[in-house]
Amino acid sequence: MAELNTTARRIIEAPNNLADLVTLMPDGSPQVTPLWVDHDGAHVIVNTAQGRQKTRNMQRDPRVALCIVNSDNTQNYVQVRGKVVEVVEGGPAWEHFKTLVAKYRPGDDLSQRQPDLSRVMVRILPEHVQVYGE
Amino acid sequence: MAELNTTARRIIEAPNNLADLVTLMPDGSPQVTPLWVDHDGAHVIVNTAQGRQKTRNMQRDPRVALCIVNSDNTQNYVQVRGKVVEVVEGGPAWEHFKTLVAKYRPGDDLSQRQPDLSRVMVRILPEHVQVYGE
Repeated sequence: MAELNTTARRIIEAPNNLADLVTLMPDGSPQVTPLWVDHDGAHVIVNTAQGRQKTRNMQRDPRVALCIVNSDNTQNYVQVRGKVVEVVEGGPAWEHFKTLVAKYRPGDDLSQRQPDLSRVMVRILPEHVQVYGE
Repeated sequence: MAELNTTARRIIEAPNNLADLVTLMPDGSPQVTPLWVDHDGAHVIVNTAQGRQKTRNMQRDPRVALCIVNSDNTQNYVQVRGKVVEVVEGGPAWEHFKTLVAKYRPGDDLSQRQPDLSRVMVRILPEHVQVYGE
């Protein structure tokens, strides 16, 4: 595994930086989508929903890549290549989604909302990390 | 092939939007990097340099994907899956690079600079285009 250094963590933690997540289609060609991102120190964590193309792709092939650009300075970015090591569904994935809403859309109050049990939390182990513009 | 509609073109043309370009490593795993982007109406065009990982990847496997997010509204983005159909090196690639500098860094004057003949212009035919937040 590869380490998420201080700069990588800072870019991931900033509430205005999206990740572009790459997954592999059934034929091996790549697919890329922007989404909210998080980390737990060792893993990059994303949250998606059941039935989506990227979710199906990660359930079939764990190889992924991410790029997270510092929106305040686009020369400063982190590239990650790694593997999906955990897929969490249901209540815990909804709880994690709420932490992402609090980070990216602090105005939204989901506390009274019905849990969206289609949420899927995905933990990615970085195998290759490169930080540019440190 | 798939069409780059008006919204897709507008996102690509804006001088503050980078593309995340995905290429495939020799083992089939994905690699993703941010870079400047352009189009000619039918193709998405990027400019890189010889010897870089993404250049080697595209020369070996033409399957790529791009995601370009509107930096003024991150809910508005275009996803492209497609194939490299042309790789141009040398002088013409340097000329194209200069148009990207004029777009993204209008203050930089490269007219007096020695041409960087390691530049590589890559034309990508979109096979799948999705625009979100139109």
